Amino acid sequence: MEADLYARDCGSRQVLDRIGDRWSVLVVLTLASGTKRYGELAQRIEGVSQKMLTQTLRGLERDGLVTRAAHATVPPRVDYALTALGRSLLDLLSGLESWATTHLGEVEAARARYDTR
Amino acid sequence: MEADLYARDCGSRQVLDRIGDRWSVLVVLTLASGTKRYGELAQRIEGVSQKMLTQTLRGLERDGLVTRAAHATVPPRVDYALTALGRSLLDLLSGLESWATTHLGEVEAARARYDTR
Repeated sequence: MEADLYARDCGSRQVLDRIGDRWSVLVVLTLASGTKRYGELAQRIEGVSQKMLTQTLRGLERDGLVTRAAHATVPPRVDYALTALGRSLLDLLSGLESWATTHLGEVEAARARYDTR
Repeated sequence: MEADLYARDCGSRQVLDRIGDRWSVLVVLTLASGTKRYGELAQRIEGVSQKMLTQTLRGLERDGLVTRAAHATVPPRVDYALTALGRSLLDLLSGLESWATTHLGEVEAARARYDTR
């Protein structure tokens, strides 16, 4: 059966939830420049809680978008990197980032009009 | 101040939440082919509850992506259409849809591997 985002039980809706998620977008885009440690991700993505970052990374790993490599160093080091599948998302997610930042003013103006009418 | 998706309080994160949302994506893509009535949207987007569809349309209208036109007919008719801002999202959101449906199999295979290890 072909995947169909309009179909009630199609798994592609869950995939969309993953790739459209705010924190997933930020993690994948941060990994675009190469492997990062957990702490580097936490620092770059302002305001993400430890719980949310851990949960996001686990979801991205489970879905095959990110790899996790734990090193038996002291202190222990955990590195995250994009898989080929994760890299295949970069153009799309950069597009989302770009749209969101470019059109923020227009969206905020529309909201102000809506809220005062 | 320039919009920055990585910054804690930047409104672009809320914009991303809107445009990456499952139901917003489906509504905007359904409106790509032209104005639709509420009932047409509800029928095309399987499994969306009335509450969720209403809430999604209101959010899209508030953010300036969709227009709502109520006609004083019997029975009353409400039409939804994309604004120019909404249309500017079409390529991006088609890209998300296409990625989600094309790579569903790979994501599901990755999940199965993760869950059995």
